[in-house]
Amino acid sequence: MKDLFGSPGKVSGLVLRIGQCLFAAASIGVMASASGFSGTTAFCYLIASMGLQILWSFGLACLDIHALRLKRDLHNHVLVSLFVVGDWVTAILSLAAACSSAGVVVLFSRDTNFCRVEKQLSCSMYKISVAFAFMSWFLLAISSYVMFWLLASV
Amino acid sequence: MKDLFGSPGKVSGLVLRIGQCLFAAASIGVMASASGFSGTTAFCYLIASMGLQILWSFGLACLDIHALRLKRDLHNHVLVSLFVVGDWVTAILSLAAACSSAGVVVLFSRDTNFCRVEKQLSCSMYKISVAFAFMSWFLLAISSYVMFWLLASV
Repeated sequence: MKDLFGSPGKVSGLVLRIGQCLFAAASIGVMASASGFSGTTAFCYLIASMGLQILWSFGLACLDIHALRLKRDLHNHVLVSLFVVGDWVTAILSLAAACSSAGVVVLFSRDTNFCRVEKQLSCSMYKISVAFAFMSWFLLAISSYVMFWLLASV
Repeated sequence: MKDLFGSPGKVSGLVLRIGQCLFAAASIGVMASASGFSGTTAFCYLIASMGLQILWSFGLACLDIHALRLKRDLHNHVLVSLFVVGDWVTAILSLAAACSSAGVVVLFSRDTNFCRVEKQLSCSMYKISVAFAFMSWFLLAISSYVMFWLLASV
């Protein structure tokens, strides 16, 4: 069970964490460079949520590197419980942020003609940022399921 | 482990399923009776997603009643796997629908003055509907975690 793909202290787990950080950073970067994002609460929330995800995933990536270098075992019950709670809270917040931003982007680009009328809105940038947020959430969801599975089967 | 709160074939599981159905139905009812909802994709998606949740939760409530009446055991691996997949897919879709609608409601009522200017939009109804959707998702999330825990510990 300890050789499960993506479990903490494994190379696959580290790759997942680095992927989460990179996609979340890309999402923040694209959104922050888009003009007119600050007037929409959902986009500001996306930046905050992706920021939290970077902090969390970066911390766990450092822990994975530490465990890999010193060949430490991270599979004790208390640590895995902590990872599960953190992973699930971050994953739910990220999905909520990505979906609320996606709802607003669809409203801007399909339901109304905001994107055509208001030229200062960078609609294509918003779309790219939301897509990165979904990718980041997807990788985090894989980590979350692996952690929960580990906790339940310890 | 079979006496876990909310597990299939138990009274607690049945209560959770009935709660999910009721809140999802309330969400659809309130949204469908609000004027001007059909112009927003997120609100239409909320209705579709809550409809799917009603179908799924109602089906499982019937199965729970059947198991309770005939004192059948629903804890076999294939059935629990099926419940896990269905529960998680429905829970993610419901959260996505609730969050995208919430993003749009916040945009209408705080970021812009749509709610004050466009009188045909029933903003308070949208808010109530989204609140019901979140409650329904919360109950479904409890069921999903219980099912996943059961599957991992079988």
